[in-house]
Amino acid sequence: MPRGDGRANDELRPVVLTPGFNKYAEGSCRVEQGDTIVLCTASIEDRVPMWLKGSNQGWVTAEYGMLPRAAKERNQREAGRGPSGRSHEIQRLVGRAIRSVVKLPNIGERTIILDCDVIQADGGTRTASVTGAYVALACALHEMRKANILKTMPLEGSVAAVSVGVVGGQPMLDLNYEEDSTAGVDMNIVMTGQGGLVEVQGTAEGKPFSRETLEALLDLAGKGIAELRAKQETALAGIV
Amino acid sequence: MPRGDGRANDELRPVVLTPGFNKYAEGSCRVEQGDTIVLCTASIEDRVPMWLKGSNQGWVTAEYGMLPRAAKERNQREAGRGPSGRSHEIQRLVGRAIRSVVKLPNIGERTIILDCDVIQADGGTRTASVTGAYVALACALHEMRKANILKTMPLEGSVAAVSVGVVGGQPMLDLNYEEDSTAGVDMNIVMTGQGGLVEVQGTAEGKPFSRETLEALLDLAGKGIAELRAKQETALAGIV
Amino acid sequence: MPRGDGRANDELRPVVLTPGFNKYAEGSCRVEQGDTIVLCTASIEDRVPMWLKGSNQGWVTAEYGMLPRAAKERNQREAGRGPSGRSHEIQRLVGRAIRSVVKLPNIGERTIILDCDVIQADGGTRTASVTGAYVALACALHEMRKANILKTMPLEGSVAAVSVGVVGGQPMLDLNYEEDSTAGVDMNIVMTGQGGLVEVQGTAEGKPFSRETLEALLDLAGKGIAELRAKQETALAGIV
Amino acid sequence: MPRGDGRANDELRPVVLTPGFNKYAEGSCRVEQGDTIVLCTASIEDRVPMWLKGSNQGWVTAEYGMLPRAAKERNQREAGRGPSGRSHEIQRLVGRAIRSVVKLPNIGERTIILDCDVIQADGGTRTASVTGAYVALACALHEMRKANILKTMPLEGSVAAVSVGVVGGQPMLDLNYEEDSTAGVDMNIVMTGQGGLVEVQGTAEGKPFSRETLEALLDLAGKGIAELRAKQETALAGIV
Amino acid sequence: MPRGDGRANDELRPVVLTPGFNKYAEGSCRVEQGDTIVLCTASIEDRVPMWLKGSNQGWVTAEYGMLPRAAKERNQREAGRGPSGRSHEIQRLVGRAIRSVVKLPNIGERTIILDCDVIQADGGTRTASVTGAYVALACALHEMRKANILKTMPLEGSVAAVSVGVVGGQPMLDLNYEEDSTAGVDMNIVMTGQGGLVEVQGTAEGKPFSRETLEALLDLAGKGIAELRAKQETALAGIV
Amino acid sequence: MPRGDGRANDELRPVVLTPGFNKYAEGSCRVEQGDTIVLCTASIEDRVPMWLKGSNQGWVTAEYGMLPRAAKERNQREAGRGPSGRSHEIQRLVGRAIRSVVKLPNIGERTIILDCDVIQADGGTRTASVTGAYVALACALHEMRKANILKTMPLEGSVAAVSVGVVGGQPMLDLNYEEDSTAGVDMNIVMTGQGGLVEVQGTAEGKPFSRETLEALLDLAGKGIAELRAKQETALAGIV
Repeated sequence: MPRGDGRANDELRPVVLTPGFNKYAEGSCRVEQGDTIVLCTASIEDRVPMWLKGSNQGWVTAEYGMLPRAAKERNQREAGRGPSGRSHEIQRLVGRAIRSVVKLPNIGERTIILDCDVIQADGGTRTASVTGAYVALACALHEMRKANILKTMPLEGSVAAVSVGVVGGQPMLDLNYEEDSTAGVDMNIVMTGQGGLVEVQGTAEGKPFSRETLEALLDLAGKGIAELRAKQETALAGIV
Repeated sequence: MPRGDGRANDELRPVVLTPGFNKYAEGSCRVEQGDTIVLCTASIEDRVPMWLKGSNQGWVTAEYGMLPRAAKERNQREAGRGPSGRSHEIQRLVGRAIRSVVKLPNIGERTIILDCDVIQADGGTRTASVTGAYVALACALHEMRKANILKTMPLEGSVAAVSVGVVGGQPMLDLNYEEDSTAGVDMNIVMTGQGGLVEVQGTAEGKPFSRETLEALLDLAGKGIAELRAKQETALAGIV
Repeated sequence: MPRGDGRANDELRPVVLTPGFNKYAEGSCRVEQGDTIVLCTASIEDRVPMWLKGSNQGWVTAEYGMLPRAAKERNQREAGRGPSGRSHEIQRLVGRAIRSVVKLPNIGERTIILDCDVIQADGGTRTASVTGAYVALACALHEMRKANILKTMPLEGSVAAVSVGVVGGQPMLDLNYEEDSTAGVDMNIVMTGQGGLVEVQGTAEGKPFSRETLEALLDLAGKGIAELRAKQETALAGIV
Repeated sequence: MPRGDGRANDELRPVVLTPGFNKYAEGSCRVEQGDTIVLCTASIEDRVPMWLKGSNQGWVTAEYGMLPRAAKERNQREAGRGPSGRSHEIQRLVGRAIRSVVKLPNIGERTIILDCDVIQADGGTRTASVTGAYVALACALHEMRKANILKTMPLEGSVAAVSVGVVGGQPMLDLNYEEDSTAGVDMNIVMTGQGGLVEVQGTAEGKPFSRETLEALLDLAGKGIAELRAKQETALAGIV
Repeated sequence: MPRGDGRANDELRPVVLTPGFNKYAEGSCRVEQGDTIVLCTASIEDRVPMWLKGSNQGWVTAEYGMLPRAAKERNQREAGRGPSGRSHEIQRLVGRAIRSVVKLPNIGERTIILDCDVIQADGGTRTASVTGAYVALACALHEMRKANILKTMPLEGSVAAVSVGVVGGQPMLDLNYEEDSTAGVDMNIVMTGQGGLVEVQGTAEGKPFSRETLEALLDLAGKGIAELRAKQETALAGIV
Repeated sequence: MPRGDGRANDELRPVVLTPGFNKYAEGSCRVEQGDTIVLCTASIEDRVPMWLKGSNQGWVTAEYGMLPRAAKERNQREAGRGPSGRSHEIQRLVGRAIRSVVKLPNIGERTIILDCDVIQADGGTRTASVTGAYVALACALHEMRKANILKTMPLEGSVAAVSVGVVGGQPMLDLNYEEDSTAGVDMNIVMTGQGGLVEVQGTAEGKPFSRETLEALLDLAGKGIAELRAKQETALAGIV
């Protein structure tokens, strides 16, 4: 049984990464993955959180938001009620993912804020945020390196993320919203360009799942992330 | 003395209106006015505020937000601290402006929410929001009319807005951020397509201004809004 | 057709300004304009906002509130839900209006906070706030001048405000609540004692309005503000 | 040793009760007690809290606020940060005190909200609030009785309050701010017109106090409340 | 008529004080008084509130909370809506009570925070909090004394609290929830170990009460607090 | 190299489950796992969230909190600032975990709220919450079954959770706080009693990890959860 949009089970949606879409940010990247569109910017500030003052070390953090009409149903604007539990969870995930490839001492006492704002949501916004935030960050760091603000590139590799899941009994790569909402298992995987696991978050939505299913999903994710890594490299090649 | 970007004093920045940019919203329009970019969506909900229940009448309201890195300096996200005074003021302005051309009884007991989200800010975001929100609204109403949900088009004309100001002693049309931040008088004008005044908001930033200056600025605004009206008509012609 | 309270169309309501009503504040003025009553105080603090530190310059800001039963219907207390959009808008207007006549460098690194609290509301509370806040401010500055804390008076003139509007097709001065709620055009004008325009905020509540109407309303406002200026001078003559 | 303002230890400050000061409220009373000024209004709403729906019984509640410059030092406005712990405590006290003399079943399914707003604070604002709120309430109930909305007066007597304390080793009646801030014991007493105790709240600010001191303070409070009761009766005589 | 649980009118519920129940806190005490269970911890921080900086003096403050299912009906969690008016009132009471026996200059520029968290509530949680917070504080101070951080013990005696009330016309000691909810007078008394009054808070829930009733309740409270003091001494004897 | 507390790498800390610790809750369980102590209660309410009204189906949700002094450093109380991102994340995890074994249609239109409050935290509080919340839930459901409110037991098996991680290069079971804070990989696993995976959340704290490491950690978790399942059965055997 083919997928609703005709893809093979191990096929990503079309991915377009557009670095530099924002005129002001130190680094930026628009991610389009099928109908999911996320704007990622990297902002550099010359201060660190209280607990890092005097540590000679920087910090990387992420914030995530969704425009009210990014989704099928309009969502109430977060201003005035605070980020939802879901937003909190996602921005913590993005922050951890990106920090896994940054040498914090090498960026000095600076904070890099990665803003991921979803313009249109069709599943996989958190993983697209990781993939795009990495590109935005890399742009910003390359600029700082060129301007000699940084002595060395403080990156230990690249990082990207993808969702996988079991839909209609079949393991599938890169679920769109419709697939995601009927999935029996839903998993988000973050991996480095070198293939190391950074984050594995899998949830049984209905029945529990087996170790074999987990293996199959990790295989799919590895394939997808390798392809996303290539897209990231191409996008950055045009910039740096 | 020419303007920084080479425009004549009575010249708009390049304006591009892109209706239908959003896959989910009942109506939508992206506005680019120079480097200012605003995403406007119209969402229709089958309920009205408490005070209109049973009135057989609808409501139109607007919300305004800015992505954290829409501006030169990153702004703190409004989630968790509520819309700023400035955002409140703008969304009230946009709502009033749009309501001035809508026959509320003719939309039935529905609420139309106009979300204006600034992706990049280079001056004039509130007036661009009015211009774009009108197009988003018109798209949504045309769809409802086509689907026979509405018996008649509930619009009494079109509405658009532009900023004018006195910069370096010269009255100028459509200020960008740099001009706006050095302007001695700053004014936002909302007018109907028929040339009636809907809203006049002028502020002396430094010295008070004279009645003559006010006249000159209103003339400029009238010229700009006529051009914006033509852009709106062209954009909607492709849709409806 | 005479007005509900028998006034001529170009006639202010009775205005009583009572400077020094508050025992603690550095400056204060109670404004009664018809049945509208506003308490204005000026408080001086020896600190400036973050962004002015080290600038050798002061700041003037305003806050506006309404007692819960100032109006016909009791309003929910703002404590616990934050100032409404309307309050935000008004306090920004009052602050801008008053700053237009203050030489900020001449007050040193101090903040003057103008609190405008509405005890009873019958239309025109925001313009009464401007008129009264000016008197409260002038009292405070005169005290500081007398105490030799200030070398010179940091005022470049006076400022006052009034509402005008079109009611039943007639341009009218100083609308009360009943007139305001049926007005087709509603406008608030802030002018200096010298007759310069500081702020023009006009809104069509129903149909758009013409340039001619705008002219007629500005004429009325000019007349009213000249009378308010005389009241301010008399009130301050008794104090300074 | 005489008191700072020349009063005897068992002497109230001058008390002026002005019922009907507010044009809109169903009942109102301005209380001046020395330099303490509190505006009390009674608002009647045709609904009850959730937990009283269908009970055929009404509710009486109080809210308390202070204008930012009511005190020597300006206080931050409560809008946007919620009522302080102190305000909460006071409004709960005022509500309990007034409810002690109201037959709730006799007011029907209505809520009476007593707003107590301090215009100027010189000690004893919470007790002045009780004394004034009673008068505001009585005015409102008399109006409802006259309009035949109520079949009987739902009051079981009157209620008033006063502060007492030990200052410089001496028990004293009706402390002003200066006395209050140096008091070793600080006590607020609420009593009915018939002399019954409704609320006793005493706190040792420094050393613990004895039963004998408590007795002396209760005697003083009884004398003061009898005088306040006479003031309340005179004020209401002019109204009802 | 005996009490529901068979106690005499002047009899406390069984009281168990367990100091040191918490592994991390500088001092701690679990209080069980009948079915009421409160966890008290004392935390020491090397900073003081803004207004005490440079004063060479410390501060003691308390916070109070209730687990959602501490009571018969589940209460909404306070996170996200702030402490209730009731919680505010109680934590202010506990703070004042404990400060009455602490020599603040002798603890240096430190803040001691007393957290009182109710695990199970069956009446008297605020008075149990005072009794337990004193023990937690004493433990923490003894540790600091032993470690020679403090030169002398900064305590001027002990403090404990108990509730009393009039139930079914009878003055009673230490009300449980059922008794409390039907009490005609409800009173909380804080006393030092030496028998001085620190706080007296009495409220008529229905009819006003007489001076004689107040005397009877104070007698009962004195008896109960003497017994609680003995429990506190025994508990601390095992620790210090 | 042995672990700090002498355990083998595949050894749980001592676990004590105490069902019924709370007098009021429909179900409850205190979990002690080493020095981590969590109180879990199950509260049943006869209503469902808006989106389930009329669905003939129930809901299970969880809330998580930590007493301010549950940890080595005192944490600010969540009241007044809302649950932290971390708390949000945990309560969403607990809710999902428990729902995976509940047949929601079989509990009728009821909501079961699982409150997990951490009294003392020494690592693994979120997994202990899952293990204890299951027991609290099972107690509540057994009571409802006995009272014939439920026709059948709405459970499809049991669920428990444990943390695993890589510490000093070694995969280890059930990390305490010290181990957790130095772990290179940190993973929380939720499994059913039948051995199915419900949730897998693994994070590389420093270097990315390999598929082999993931396998080793899943093996350890499986062993630990089997032991926890036996503890749960024993605890419930004494109750049901």
